[in-house]
Amino acid sequence: MAKNNIKNDAITPRDVDFAQWYTDVCRKAELMDYSSVKGFIIYRPYGYALWEQIQSYMDKRFKETGHQNVYMPMLIPESLLNKEKDHVEGFAPECAVVTKGGLDDLEEHLIVRPTSETLFCEHYAKIVNSYRDLPKKYNQWCSVVRWEKTTRPFLRGSEFLWQEGHTIHATEEEARSETLMMRDIYEETAKELLAIPMLTGRKTEREKFAGAEETYTIEALMHDGKALQSGTSHYFGQGFAKAFNMTFLDKDNKLKHVYQTSWGVSTRLLGAIIMVHGDDNGLVLPPRLAPTQVVIIPIQQKKAGVLEKADEIAEQLKAAGMRVSVDASDKSPGWKFSEAEMRGIPVRIEVGPRDIENGHCVVVKRNDGVKTQMDLDENLPQAIHDTLETIHQEMYDKAAAFLNSHITRVNTLEEVGQVLDEKGGYVKMNWCGEEACELKIKELYQATSRCIDEHEEADGVCPCCGKKAKHVVYFARAY
Amino acid sequence: MAKNNIKNDAITPRDVDFAQWYTDVCRKAELMDYSSVKGFIIYRPYGYALWEQIQSYMDKRFKETGHQNVYMPMLIPESLLNKEKDHVEGFAPECAVVTKGGLDDLEEHLIVRPTSETLFCEHYAKIVNSYRDLPKKYNQWCSVVRWEKTTRPFLRGSEFLWQEGHTIHATEEEARSETLMMRDIYEETAKELLAIPMLTGRKTEREKFAGAEETYTIEALMHDGKALQSGTSHYFGQGFAKAFNMTFLDKDNKLKHVYQTSWGVSTRLLGAIIMVHGDDNGLVLPPRLAPTQVVIIPIQQKKAGVLEKADEIAEQLKAAGMRVSVDASDKSPGWKFSEAEMRGIPVRIEVGPRDIENGHCVVVKRNDGVKTQMDLDENLPQAIHDTLETIHQEMYDKAAAFLNSHITRVNTLEEVGQVLDEKGGYVKMNWCGEEACELKIKELYQATSRCIDEHEEADGVCPCCGKKAKHVVYFARAY
Repeated sequence: MAKNNIKNDAITPRDVDFAQWYTDVCRKAELMDYSSVKGFIIYRPYGYALWEQIQSYMDKRFKETGHQNVYMPMLIPESLLNKEKDHVEGFAPECAVVTKGGLDDLEEHLIVRPTSETLFCEHYAKIVNSYRDLPKKYNQWCSVVRWEKTTRPFLRGSEFLWQEGHTIHATEEEARSETLMMRDIYEETAKELLAIPMLTGRKTEREKFAGAEETYTIEALMHDGKALQSGTSHYFGQGFAKAFNMTFLDKDNKLKHVYQTSWGVSTRLLGAIIMVHGDDNGLVLPPRLAPTQVVIIPIQQKKAGVLEKADEIAEQLKAAGMRVSVDASDKSPGWKFSEAEMRGIPVRIEVGPRDIENGHCVVVKRNDGVKTQMDLDENLPQAIHDTLETIHQEMYDKAAAFLNSHITRVNTLEEVGQVLDEKGGYVKMNWCGEEACELKIKELYQATSRCIDEHEEADGVCPCCGKKAKHVVYFARAY
Repeated sequence: MAKNNIKNDAITPRDVDFAQWYTDVCRKAELMDYSSVKGFIIYRPYGYALWEQIQSYMDKRFKETGHQNVYMPMLIPESLLNKEKDHVEGFAPECAVVTKGGLDDLEEHLIVRPTSETLFCEHYAKIVNSYRDLPKKYNQWCSVVRWEKTTRPFLRGSEFLWQEGHTIHATEEEARSETLMMRDIYEETAKELLAIPMLTGRKTEREKFAGAEETYTIEALMHDGKALQSGTSHYFGQGFAKAFNMTFLDKDNKLKHVYQTSWGVSTRLLGAIIMVHGDDNGLVLPPRLAPTQVVIIPIQQKKAGVLEKADEIAEQLKAAGMRVSVDASDKSPGWKFSEAEMRGIPVRIEVGPRDIENGHCVVVKRNDGVKTQMDLDENLPQAIHDTLETIHQEMYDKAAAFLNSHITRVNTLEEVGQVLDEKGGYVKMNWCGEEACELKIKELYQATSRCIDEHEEADGVCPCCGKKAKHVVYFARAY
């Protein structure tokens, strides 16, 4: 048996060792492999196909909302990265540095981009002069490098794939509205494409992005009760604009600094998909995302007409716009079932000689294993299409129920630890707004503030220090 | 006037200074901008959109022919790059080297990928065991870094965007056929999408890729008579397979080395598009590639009904699948015409109050300036669609006529220089097969062998050395 093949008994159950289960799924579903450089992974075809689906969906949303794609250099001069104080402090410890080029030592070291704010700023400063040139709404799909000590596939790596949007605007109001719009697009993408409900809110001063005035976040809850920051949208105000001299002549003939945003999601989303939906048989992919939505597995495929019927069904479903494959390999049906389950294919159709004789097939839903007999007639594509939509809704509802049942309101410091230890998920609590109290909770319970509730006003005292609360905030242990 | 705006008199005529004309078009059509790192350019929205169109077309072709996308690490350990002798010799002088990561000096230096053969080899060696695992046909879209001393936008840069396909096969025959198939797909892409005819053939020993047994190339001819290598497809035999121990157990139960290919095209294609089709008014984009195929320019747009009619036409054309924009800015029509010309938009539609009254519009073809009056009725979308297809064919035919009239058969060394100086293009000649004669021509006339004719057999002697000719070969001055 080939070493890269999927074995029936291949993965550790989630409740035995969740971290090992995660790694098992990443490897056995052939999403990724390790490379010989620590922390740098190989995105294998199935893993990369998931990212392509996310790209394709989001790119369309970005373009519909007036954004344009560009490509900036991979290397940033050290002096340019150093221009904005908070920014360089945030990234300097994580940088990969190019010191030689073409056999020569470089006069100025070049940083492999950890993020591209500084390049966008420099370019915008050059090309924008008048209010007529605004807004500029650019996005870039690329990989970035951040030197990490401990890494996990998709969740934390020294290189990861992402998109980074960078926009500049004539007014604060417009920039703030862009920041929130992108946060909303992220939340909708999670809901509509990934079937993942998100907790959304604003980051605390301590947790926000290096250089940002505000950071908005979408946070997903994993099966093990830990949170995963899945996308962020930043409002920069005029900080970078002043550091990089991004000015424009406004309608009133005055020279002003622009207002700026940036926002990004990364291949972390693949980690969220795995850990929100996966089960002990492997991946469970949301249907709109799945590279293969339906796999047809012929039973007794050597019997006359079986493979032909499988292909015929595949053509019928493809014609109706579904992504379909037929597994006509010489493996046993049981093996094929396991493989399709490991890969999380939303719908499996089994069709054998007796089914054909009786004019039906067996349809199995990956998310809950429910089997249905369906007629092999012209209504099949609609029925399968409806099944895919049902699966999406069921997956979202299940994840939303899990999220909602794992938000626990607490009023004392002891409760924080108790809830995190016994149940996991988010504790929702009053907070004074001081970093000292965040740090205390981190030290005591290894939990960080995930976000500030934007809708609920604090009423009471901070359970850490007893002072009057300013915000309602969510804490969780997080990836 | 903003510094990034297009001016009517902005570009140097081609015949005055072709190199300056090229740079002018790159800048004024807003395809690119320079960054603060020498040789690293910014792909601005319009330039990147061209690359996205190429990606979208080619990616479809790749997938239809059984290829899958992956993503490999950006950094390669020095020892891995050194594993294949010819390969490392070819790339070592061009490498950007990461020597620090996360504030520490690295034990082993990491090379920013100049190409990813070695990473694919390492991965394939790990995941392939049996003939059942073959072929593997992977492709990657990414950027690569090659330290260059002299750089020009899109043609030669220290970083460029490209795709690199890497495949392994059980038999030599299959690998050779893959190599040729990809060369054909490149040639077809040039013809069908870019309206560029290519000279195709095999590279000489001297000009082939570092580590390859055979390199096939597609070569485009620029307006100034110089050649541009626009895509290559390599057959590696088992060279890398042996260096990287890529083996598989064959059907006969014997352990064998795989046969390998790689192939790539890059953003050089943008250079080809500019220099094959462009004219003294700017870019001329082939219609199937153009991000905007039709621009509608309202005349006297403040008059009642004009803008509405422009929008109505746009909707009509969009509904028929065309990429259309309306220029409703407050610039003058003349300015808008120039801007649309600079950007190479294939079709311009002018519509004003009198046109509307008479039920027609004026349609101007960018490639030859020909104006036609067309009726504003339900047949307009078909007429515009046909016009776009006509433009594609005219552009291809014009470039093919130019190419064909610039291939000159020569029999003496003197003729080589004479033709290259007076007319440019390709000289087609007998060649003994010795590198010494290639070098002689290079020294005398600054021309390199572009490719060996695969169809025509040599008959006569090499004009350099007088020995019996082995091949018919094409020489040209090249970018």
